[in-house]
Amino acid sequence: MQNWTIYLFGEIHSDWRERIDQGLRAAKLPVECLAPVTDHAASDDCGVEILGNESESFWMDHKGAKINAIRTRTYIERADVVVVRFGEKYRQWNAAFDAGYAAALGKPIITLHDPGLTHALKEVDGAALAVAETPEQVVEILKYVMRAS
Amino acid sequence: MQNWTIYLFGEIHSDWRERIDQGLRAAKLPVECLAPVTDHAASDDCGVEILGNESESFWMDHKGAKINAIRTRTYIERADVVVVRFGEKYRQWNAAFDAGYAAALGKPIITLHDPGLTHALKEVDGAALAVAETPEQVVEILKYVMRAS
Amino acid sequence: MQNWTIYLFGEIHSDWRERIDQGLRAAKLPVECLAPVTDHAASDDCGVEILGNESESFWMDHKGAKINAIRTRTYIERADVVVVRFGEKYRQWNAAFDAGYAAALGKPIITLHDPGLTHALKEVDGAALAVAETPEQVVEILKYVMRAS
Amino acid sequence: MQNWTIYLFGEIHSDWRERIDQGLRAAKLPVECLAPVTDHAASDDCGVEILGNESESFWMDHKGAKINAIRTRTYIERADVVVVRFGEKYRQWNAAFDAGYAAALGKPIITLHDPGLTHALKEVDGAALAVAETPEQVVEILKYVMRAS
Amino acid sequence: MQNWTIYLFGEIHSDWRERIDQGLRAAKLPVECLAPVTDHAASDDCGVEILGNESESFWMDHKGAKINAIRTRTYIERADVVVVRFGEKYRQWNAAFDAGYAAALGKPIITLHDPGLTHALKEVDGAALAVAETPEQVVEILKYVMRAS
Amino acid sequence: MQNWTIYLFGEIHSDWRERIDQGLRAAKLPVECLAPVTDHAASDDCGVEILGNESESFWMDHKGAKINAIRTRTYIERADVVVVRFGEKYRQWNAAFDAGYAAALGKPIITLHDPGLTHALKEVDGAALAVAETPEQVVEILKYVMRAS
Amino acid sequence: MQNWTIYLFGEIHSDWRERIDQGLRAAKLPVECLAPVTDHAASDDCGVEILGNESESFWMDHKGAKINAIRTRTYIERADVVVVRFGEKYRQWNAAFDAGYAAALGKPIITLHDPGLTHALKEVDGAALAVAETPEQVVEILKYVMRAS
Amino acid sequence: MQNWTIYLFGEIHSDWRERIDQGLRAAKLPVECLAPVTDHAASDDCGVEILGNESESFWMDHKGAKINAIRTRTYIERADVVVVRFGEKYRQWNAAFDAGYAAALGKPIITLHDPGLTHALKEVDGAALAVAETPEQVVEILKYVMRAS
Repeated sequence: MQNWTIYLFGEIHSDWRERIDQGLRAAKLPVECLAPVTDHAASDDCGVEILGNESESFWMDHKGAKINAIRTRTYIERADVVVVRFGEKYRQWNAAFDAGYAAALGKPIITLHDPGLTHALKEVDGAALAVAETPEQVVEILKYVMRAS
Repeated sequence: MQNWTIYLFGEIHSDWRERIDQGLRAAKLPVECLAPVTDHAASDDCGVEILGNESESFWMDHKGAKINAIRTRTYIERADVVVVRFGEKYRQWNAAFDAGYAAALGKPIITLHDPGLTHALKEVDGAALAVAETPEQVVEILKYVMRAS
Repeated sequence: MQNWTIYLFGEIHSDWRERIDQGLRAAKLPVECLAPVTDHAASDDCGVEILGNESESFWMDHKGAKINAIRTRTYIERADVVVVRFGEKYRQWNAAFDAGYAAALGKPIITLHDPGLTHALKEVDGAALAVAETPEQVVEILKYVMRAS
Repeated sequence: MQNWTIYLFGEIHSDWRERIDQGLRAAKLPVECLAPVTDHAASDDCGVEILGNESESFWMDHKGAKINAIRTRTYIERADVVVVRFGEKYRQWNAAFDAGYAAALGKPIITLHDPGLTHALKEVDGAALAVAETPEQVVEILKYVMRAS
Repeated sequence: MQNWTIYLFGEIHSDWRERIDQGLRAAKLPVECLAPVTDHAASDDCGVEILGNESESFWMDHKGAKINAIRTRTYIERADVVVVRFGEKYRQWNAAFDAGYAAALGKPIITLHDPGLTHALKEVDGAALAVAETPEQVVEILKYVMRAS
Repeated sequence: MQNWTIYLFGEIHSDWRERIDQGLRAAKLPVECLAPVTDHAASDDCGVEILGNESESFWMDHKGAKINAIRTRTYIERADVVVVRFGEKYRQWNAAFDAGYAAALGKPIITLHDPGLTHALKEVDGAALAVAETPEQVVEILKYVMRAS
Repeated sequence: MQNWTIYLFGEIHSDWRERIDQGLRAAKLPVECLAPVTDHAASDDCGVEILGNESESFWMDHKGAKINAIRTRTYIERADVVVVRFGEKYRQWNAAFDAGYAAALGKPIITLHDPGLTHALKEVDGAALAVAETPEQVVEILKYVMRAS
Repeated sequence: MQNWTIYLFGEIHSDWRERIDQGLRAAKLPVECLAPVTDHAASDDCGVEILGNESESFWMDHKGAKINAIRTRTYIERADVVVVRFGEKYRQWNAAFDAGYAAALGKPIITLHDPGLTHALKEVDGAALAVAETPEQVVEILKYVMRAS
């Protein structure tokens, strides 16, 4: 069986990545899961932390966002499939932005969110090949598409 | 002077497109401005209106989102420059998604939003070639990049 | 309003192209409709007719299919939107092949067929941005995506 | 000798994949063969099985077709060569669609079908680099193109 | 009817381009024919003529070949269809090179040559969508692929 | 004769663009010449002028450089041929950067510089299709590649 | 040190591939050399041998050329560098065609031929990054570009 | 953790590559660092050394620059991230050229230079995802983007 690389991005305040990881490991699938930096503070501060402080918060954010983009774009390019989760909190525009980026590269997209977000996410779901409500459904999809035949 | 095509997408509840249009027309620039369908109800209902009703709201949204994507993707592809505006209200994930799509195609991006949204938009701004706060600044940018030389 | 180019391919034994053409002309949309050669005999015979006869029917078909591909691929590349119709009769593998070709190029696809073909066409419909049952619905979709905004 | 990846898609009701597999293994070629999910029922039901039932058969098909597309597109992209078989039964529009998709990506295509289907498949054969009638011929082609030199 | 651009390259010592031109003009097709510089001496000498002499013939040829490539590559990119003619005389490696370049870009190729060259040109013909023996056949092909429908 | 678009970038302190323009106009060639903003002060200040001042000169430069990139990238993409001039003064890293950008897009490149810069520019010249010493040579090259045939 | 893949195509009647192979092995470079099928008779006959005889020599050649293209295109795509040799005998249009194909994909090209062929090969040499006269020079180039740094 | 490939190009007269190498090795990151040939004399002379002398220094440079391009382009294509350093001395147009080439391919770029070069490098910095002043900052960026998550 060939290896698959899955990039799990979006919401960082619940355990959905762990649940997908566990499910995949339990199924012994040859999958490598990639993720963005999920430590919120580290992600926000990496720019000024490494490259020096800024007096303007705009540039502080700017430097950090670009360093994170080194990882983000590299992982989108490498992924066979991307999974993006949206939660109730925060605006999560970066998740939607990365989903659009992945769509333009032709990457198969699985979205993961509660039904309550359906209307707001209709364009993202419209570009996805599957719309899941639970991490376990994502695991089942990956098990299915990777089964022996 | 050569023609430029500008695609103005994102927020649909203020007059920013009109102000950009007016500014460009006043400057007599050879620009064609494109926009998504900005009639909110028409945009939401186009799927079921044209292709028949759905019992599930998920599929109602799905059909509409995909028809709108015919216009959206065509206009992103045609644009020399895309301008995306984010407002305070609504989640606007489709705007962020289209910005990511445009970024992956290498389109020059101008973002337009209030400073209050800077932190939430840092990844989108990080991929943009200009971050404006007013429609008039967008006009000035376009006047500048299209000037005689 | 900018011009759109629409490529109408697939089934050649009913008047669906004319009905779309009429609808678009009635709406005065700036659209150019393209079509494959719809004269069945001419299409089948063009290879041997122009380049000389063949003793084997395989090569007779081969020469004709390739000459038709000059037109087919050129029109798919030029199209902003492709519309593909499947009917009850014939295998129409060339229509499905061209739909796959268009999908790989990222062209927005509208399919047009009776509900009775839904199961057989599910993969093609799955790659489409709209699934219509009548030519009039295709016209409405095009009117919608080309409206002033 | 370098590894080759071959994607075998199309007809799922005869033993052609096994015969190609056996022939390649007998020849000890460094080939990995990929296939779509060939369990017809599993393939048809995967959408509703994993993501929940649908009242409309259109959406039931739709969800399944898209999940299968995750595998299909990934395998077409990975393949060095694609082999597509058409049989007498069923419409097999998905096979023709995937062949068109592969053609647009520039993948070398081998078609496999009985001579009786030649006229109906002339456009697909016209885009192929070889047209075989038996699985054994496909094996011979692969042995030939992978020989030491 | 939409315009087509045809690039006619290869052999420069017979009147095949004129015959194609005449045939197309007689048919009143909206075609623009492009050609390389067909003045053999001008083509050979353009490098040293414009950019200064060279003591080594290798560099004399080199400078000329590259200036000609400015035209050649631009015209291949612009062409909807390329027609390449091979004659009995000279090695014409540049014609075969440009045909390979066009093939990699996915341009529809028509080859034009006497049957006596078939074996030597089998790889080029294998990548072509039509193999003609006379300029008149090329005209007929273009008339066919551009007919009203 | 078809139109050509030429992008003239690099050194902005001598009259080389005017001399090329004059030569092309004298030859009545259907060429459109594009240029970056050549007003040094306007180019340096556009960022802060339009989008507001910065306390750090780094960000002042940054905002300006990106606005100029909107024009620069658009014009490189549109150009059939790019001409880049290097002079004795200044570092002109942006000119070399844009030449590399154009090379990766496959644009035909003509370099224009004094022989004294040959060693320093050998990699850029190595990627060019012509290396000229005077604007008049550039005009002759363009006249040659655009001649009737 | 990273692996490099080199595709050696063109002339098949002298020992140049062996000499390059030996040189690279002596230098213990991590290189894999690929080649087309160099058994002339096998290459000419593969089409009819595997897929059945043809009465017309045109189609006999056609079937063989296309099967060889499966290998040829796969190896060009895989190669980091392509080396093409031209000899005095035969027309070798397939070698020039493949060189053009490789050029359009942006593959670094090394040509290998006697000085006597310089004028005839000027366009191919013009697209190459090195023009060698002996296999030993090709080995030296590869040793140089792969050295530790 | 997945492997990353980093291409370190630009200035060759200080120990910045060694410092980055050491930092990465100390952090035990799965990184492979690539570099151009940094032996200045070898790099300048490789053309004539391997392929024979030239009477004109232009062609001497030309042959060398192109051989170096075989390595340069291959490494840019392979890199996940490119790091380019500019120093005070020399014109370093090849570094800026390669940065532009990498930018057009969408490679994440990190620039490394003293603040004194900021104004001259503003366009290159504007296309970069990070602007570092010390090799240690580059190491920190790579450690950050490669951390577990």
